Amino acid sequence: MITIKDIASEAGVSVSTVSRVINNRPDVSEVARNKVLEVAHKLNYIPNESARDLAGTQSDSIGLIMRGIGNPFFSEMFGVIEQSMKKTKYSLAINQISSTANEIQAGAELARAKRLSGLIFMGGNFAYTPEMISVLDIPFVCCTYSNKFGDLSPEIFSSVSIDDEAEAYRAVNALIDYGHKDIAILLADTEDQSISELRYRGYCRALKERGIKINPNLVQKTTNFNLAEAYQATIHLINKEQEFTAVFAISDILAMAAIKALHNSGYQVPGDVSVIGIDGLNISEFIIPTLTSLIQPKLEIGRRTVELLLDIIEQKSSNQQIVLETELRLGESIRSI
Amino acid sequence: MITIKDIASEAGVSVSTVSRVINNRPDVSEVARNKVLEVAHKLNYIPNESARDLAGTQSDSIGLIMRGIGNPFFSEMFGVIEQSMKKTKYSLAINQISSTANEIQAGAELARAKRLSGLIFMGGNFAYTPEMISVLDIPFVCCTYSNKFGDLSPEIFSSVSIDDEAEAYRAVNALIDYGHKDIAILLADTEDQSISELRYRGYCRALKERGIKINPNLVQKTTNFNLAEAYQATIHLINKEQEFTAVFAISDILAMAAIKALHNSGYQVPGDVSVIGIDGLNISEFIIPTLTSLIQPKLEIGRRTVELLLDIIEQKSSNQQIVLETELRLGESIRSI
Repeated sequence: MITIKDIASEAGVSVSTVSRVINNRPDVSEVARNKVLEVAHKLNYIPNESARDLAGTQSDSIGLIMRGIGNPFFSEMFGVIEQSMKKTKYSLAINQISSTANEIQAGAELARAKRLSGLIFMGGNFAYTPEMISVLDIPFVCCTYSNKFGDLSPEIFSSVSIDDEAEAYRAVNALIDYGHKDIAILLADTEDQSISELRYRGYCRALKERGIKINPNLVQKTTNFNLAEAYQATIHLINKEQEFTAVFAISDILAMAAIKALHNSGYQVPGDVSVIGIDGLNISEFIIPTLTSLIQPKLEIGRRTVELLLDIIEQKSSNQQIVLETELRLGESIRSI
Repeated sequence: MITIKDIASEAGVSVSTVSRVINNRPDVSEVARNKVLEVAHKLNYIPNESARDLAGTQSDSIGLIMRGIGNPFFSEMFGVIEQSMKKTKYSLAINQISSTANEIQAGAELARAKRLSGLIFMGGNFAYTPEMISVLDIPFVCCTYSNKFGDLSPEIFSSVSIDDEAEAYRAVNALIDYGHKDIAILLADTEDQSISELRYRGYCRALKERGIKINPNLVQKTTNFNLAEAYQATIHLINKEQEFTAVFAISDILAMAAIKALHNSGYQVPGDVSVIGIDGLNISEFIIPTLTSLIQPKLEIGRRTVELLLDIIEQKSSNQQIVLETELRLGESIRSI
C-alpha cells in the first residue's frame, strides 16, 4: 500500500505538502503540485477517501445530482457544468440517479459521504416543501428548474433557469404572429406540477390574449418524453382529423418526433404544418428541416449555476433565483400563412 | 442523528433486520423490508457510508465508470445497464469522468471508497497493458469495447462488444452491393488505436476484396465526434471536388451531420449520395431520411455485461470476451445505383 509518506520521500517534499496537494488546497506551489501528482500517478497512489472523510478535512467538492440521463438536454448541460467547474478550485462528484429516486435524499447522502461544500440538482422536482429540503445542511442550486409549485421562501433556495411559462407564451406568440390560429400543443401532462404544466399555461395565456379559443382536441399528451412515444402521440393527433396548421412541442425531442410523424403521414413541414420547439438540443440544428426552437442559454445557465453556488459557499452571496431568457432560433420548420 | 436503533424501535423489528435491509441483503422478508424502508424514509435516515465502509461490510455494489457523457450512444447504454442491474441484488455506483481522465484509476478509487464487488467500464481505451490494470483487484467488464490494441491475455479481462472491424466491413460491403465504388469514409483518425482505426481497417478490407482502390482523398477526418465538426468535415470533403456516390460514416452522429451538410450543399440523400452509419442511436430513426445504420444490440450488450460480471463475481464464470453482432436497419439513406 502506497502512502503519502512514500510520495513525499519520492518527490522530495514534506508530507504536509503532499497532503495539501491531495486535498486540492490552494496553498502549494504549482511546481510542487505537479511533482507530487506526477509521483502519485507513477506509484499508482489511491487516496483513502474513508480515512480522509473521518479525519474531517474539508473536501472542496461540489456534488451534482442528475436525474434523467436519457434526456439529451441534461447530457449537454452536464458537459457545460463540468467545463464551468474546471476553472474553480472545487472538484465535482457526480451522482446519477434513476428517474424515480429522491434527489434530495441522494444529495444528502452524497454530501455526507464526500463532505461536500455544496450541491447542484439537475432534473429535480418543482414542488419542494421546507420539510423535504430540511435534510440538506449545505448550499444548493436547482439547475434548469425552479420551485414554481412548492412553498419554499426565496431565502432558503437558489435556482438558475428560464421562465418556462413566459417562454412557452413567446413560442406560441411567434406562431400567432406568423398567422397561425389552429395551434396544437404536444406535452406530457397539463397538470404535472412540472415543466409541462408551466409551458401549457404559457400556451393558454398566449391564445387567450390573442382571442383564440383553446381546443381540447389540439392538446395532445404523450406519456413520456421519448421519441417513440411522442411520434405515436403525433400520429394520434393527426388521426383526430382536427384541423391544425402548427404544433407547439414543449421540448425539442417532442418537436423532432412530431416532424417525422407529420412527414410519414404525408404532411410537409413547414409547407402544411409549422413546428416549433423549446430547449435547443445540438441535434435539432442538424435535422432537415432545421428545427425552429427557443434555445436555452446552456453556457450561461451552467456558468451562473456554478458561480452562484460558489458565491453562497464563500458567503459572497445569499440565495437567489436567477431567471435567464431563451433565444429564438429561426430554423426552417415554421412559415407564415 | 437518526440511528438504525431508532428505526428498529419505530418499525418494531430487530436492529439486525434493519441492518440487513440497509445493506441490501437478501435474507429478510419483503414485509419487514418495506416497513423498514418506510420508517427510514419517514425519519429522513441517512446511512453513514464511511462507518459502513470501515466496518468492512461487503457492499454488494457494482461501479460504472463512464467516460464521454457527450456521446449519446453511451447515454442510451447507461439506461440499459441501469435496467439490467435492477433485476439483481446489486446496486450501481456511477462515476462520470472527463474525457481526459484515467478510467482505471477512477475505477480503483471508486472500488476502494465503496468496497465494490465489480466494475463496468464504458468509453475506455482499447490498448491496456497488464501494468495499467494491475491496480484493479476486483472483476471488471469493458462494455462496448475490447482490448484490440493492448496486450492483455484473455484470462485477465472481460469485454462485451461488437467486432468493429467486421461490422465496418459489412457496412461498406452493403454499399458495394448497391453498386457504389466511390465510397468516402468519415472518421476521427486512421491510426487512433481505437474505434476509428478498427472501422477504417474494415473499410479498407472491403474495398480491397472487391477490387476497389482506396482513394486517400475520400478518407475524411473530423477532429471530434460532435455534430458541428463532422458537418464541417463533410463540407471539406465536398469541396475537394472528388467524385463520390456514398459515405460510410463510422458513427450515427457523423452520419447525421454528413446528411445535413450534403443537403445544405445541394445534394439529395440518397438521390445523389448514399449515407450509412454504425451504432443505431434512437434519434437516427427519426430524422428525414431515416438513417440506414448497423444497429448495435444495446439491450443485449447491457444484459450480457451485467450477467458476465455477476457470474465472475460469484465464481460461476471466468473472464471472457463476448462479441455480438449488429443488425442492419435499412432506412432511407442509401439506394442502388
